[in-house]
Amino acid sequence: MDHQDMMRRAIELAKNGTGAVDPNPLVGAVIVKDGRIIGEGYHARYGGLHAERNALASCKESPMGATLYVTLEPCCHYGKTPPCTEAILEAGIQTVYIGSRDPNPKVAGKGAAILRQAGINVIEDFLREECDTLNAPFFYYITRQRPYVAMKYAMTADGKIATETGASQWITNEESRRHVHLLRRKYQGIMAGIGTVLADDPMLSCRLGDGGRNPVRVICDSRLRIPLESKLVQSAKEIPLFIATCAKDAEKKAALEEKGVLVFVFEGQKIPLPELMDKLGELKIGSILLEGGGELNASMLEAGLVQRVYAYVGAKIFGGKTAKTPVSGRGIDLPAQSPALRLAQTEIFGDDVLCVYDVLPEKEAQ
Amino acid sequence: MDHQDMMRRAIELAKNGTGAVDPNPLVGAVIVKDGRIIGEGYHARYGGLHAERNALASCKESPMGATLYVTLEPCCHYGKTPPCTEAILEAGIQTVYIGSRDPNPKVAGKGAAILRQAGINVIEDFLREECDTLNAPFFYYITRQRPYVAMKYAMTADGKIATETGASQWITNEESRRHVHLLRRKYQGIMAGIGTVLADDPMLSCRLGDGGRNPVRVICDSRLRIPLESKLVQSAKEIPLFIATCAKDAEKKAALEEKGVLVFVFEGQKIPLPELMDKLGELKIGSILLEGGGELNASMLEAGLVQRVYAYVGAKIFGGKTAKTPVSGRGIDLPAQSPALRLAQTEIFGDDVLCVYDVLPEKEAQ
Repeated sequence: MDHQDMMRRAIELAKNGTGAVDPNPLVGAVIVKDGRIIGEGYHARYGGLHAERNALASCKESPMGATLYVTLEPCCHYGKTPPCTEAILEAGIQTVYIGSRDPNPKVAGKGAAILRQAGINVIEDFLREECDTLNAPFFYYITRQRPYVAMKYAMTADGKIATETGASQWITNEESRRHVHLLRRKYQGIMAGIGTVLADDPMLSCRLGDGGRNPVRVICDSRLRIPLESKLVQSAKEIPLFIATCAKDAEKKAALEEKGVLVFVFEGQKIPLPELMDKLGELKIGSILLEGGGELNASMLEAGLVQRVYAYVGAKIFGGKTAKTPVSGRGIDLPAQSPALRLAQTEIFGDDVLCVYDVLPEKEAQ
Repeated sequence: MDHQDMMRRAIELAKNGTGAVDPNPLVGAVIVKDGRIIGEGYHARYGGLHAERNALASCKESPMGATLYVTLEPCCHYGKTPPCTEAILEAGIQTVYIGSRDPNPKVAGKGAAILRQAGINVIEDFLREECDTLNAPFFYYITRQRPYVAMKYAMTADGKIATETGASQWITNEESRRHVHLLRRKYQGIMAGIGTVLADDPMLSCRLGDGGRNPVRVICDSRLRIPLESKLVQSAKEIPLFIATCAKDAEKKAALEEKGVLVFVFEGQKIPLPELMDKLGELKIGSILLEGGGELNASMLEAGLVQRVYAYVGAKIFGGKTAKTPVSGRGIDLPAQSPALRLAQTEIFGDDVLCVYDVLPEKEAQ
């Protein structure tokens, strides 16, 4: 077990907080003495102890002189909990390996500096990229005050999201569809267009049956066409439902609000997506899984508001000159105008392939 | 090293004949004595010695009492070379592991029976599926007398093969495009539609610069619109060019033939693809890489003439409601009507993903 293995163990621990710590970041910590792990911890839930403190509390022997591996720079300010730097100093830790820097530019580097001043050996940026990846949504949200958006779609091997007649059940297999529910748990919100609601009457919930959190649902519905009897509206008191619209229909709005729906009314004919993202950011929604149709996906991409793409490729071929594809809209003229994607990951579910891309930053609508 | 390792070694050896043995199958053989490999061989070129004989010839010590692993049932008839069963008996081989059965139903099992009658211990169907995969095109061709067709396309992560304006250079990266040239070497023919020829003026050759074989080019051109000055026609004397057409244009046909092109004229308005496949089969073209546009791809699929799909997924998003997709045509109405695909393989080239599917047999046009 070398230093990298220890940090990777801390990364794995951090993932245990998925879905429970938002809008905090995922953090894991490992304490090692004489080559043995003597303590482990992670940030388990919003408002709970930080990873470092959980790791220290778990120590089976004195952490005096030990090495700490932590995926994120320890905090040095009083928030919901006292600063972790203090706990590290009190415990007599000798060496600290830090992965990500604090994403708050006002604080970044301060935690490390305090430890160093106290005589601790501090190694920064250790496996930083892997640690940063763990919290890409959080870092994005903290620096932009807008949710990190992951666009998800299921298409056939020939790029269709439905047949010519509009049928789409099913493109992917059960294993892939189960994976989508795991994915939903990782995001604070799910966003879709009214077309999807009218076509499928979905719940857009996280059907894992483990009692875990459901993301809030965000529907773009410029003309406020959502039926009051839709599953989304009917369940709005259990799982929050936000509707973005341009319609000035006070009666429908009141009826929806009566059902527990939060309605955002924007000026103009078309929902201003950057403004909607700002609004969601204000409501502390740090991450969104976009399950739009081709038009909404295209608008979000054109506005530079998509940071990640989950493309499930099912082992089917639908054909059809006018069958729908995952991104429609006006489209680009030249291949070089495409958003820059980087393949982050692939996964295989039976005969299905999931391709995960990071959208590299370029332009973003204001 | 166990029996499976030995057969897998034989499979690897067999691949060395890729592109040089058509229309024969790829075959590899390994000879093992006292746990050591004492001889190896493969079928290296059409008309050359079979794998078993090459393996025997390579033996550094007597093969008496040794075990032979061979990917395909040894032949028992006089063809271009004397039967391999004889060579195996003469060498004193004691045990034979056989992968694939002879695909010719008239001969299947006979080679194994002859060996068994002579007192040799014969194990059939050993890693048969892996061995069969090695020669799927050959087996298909031998049993149907029609070429095995692999459909290849490059699409964006949102399923487009060109932008709204028709631009398609490039969707995939250099590494993927180099891989396509390797793929072309594996097929005896490349097939495309006249649309591709008019748009790109391609050579459809194998640009590997290793002096290896080029596949014949087959163009579907129902109205015989191919320009005499196209690269395809200009190079027809070096690399065979077949044009399938329905046009009764004797003058154009003669001009093309003058340039070395072989023109097939069919009755009707639309090229009868099953007939074209029969025709190519008669010309001993056992495998075709289909690099069509959406319409030709759709027609070939609808006729049940496609056995494999190579889908290169590039890390680009083009968008566009009417941008072209890999399979167009009329399309199917319901997802369940899709041809059944089985994911056979995935490969990653930088940010590109190649998904390879086998099309499971269902219907085939007569």
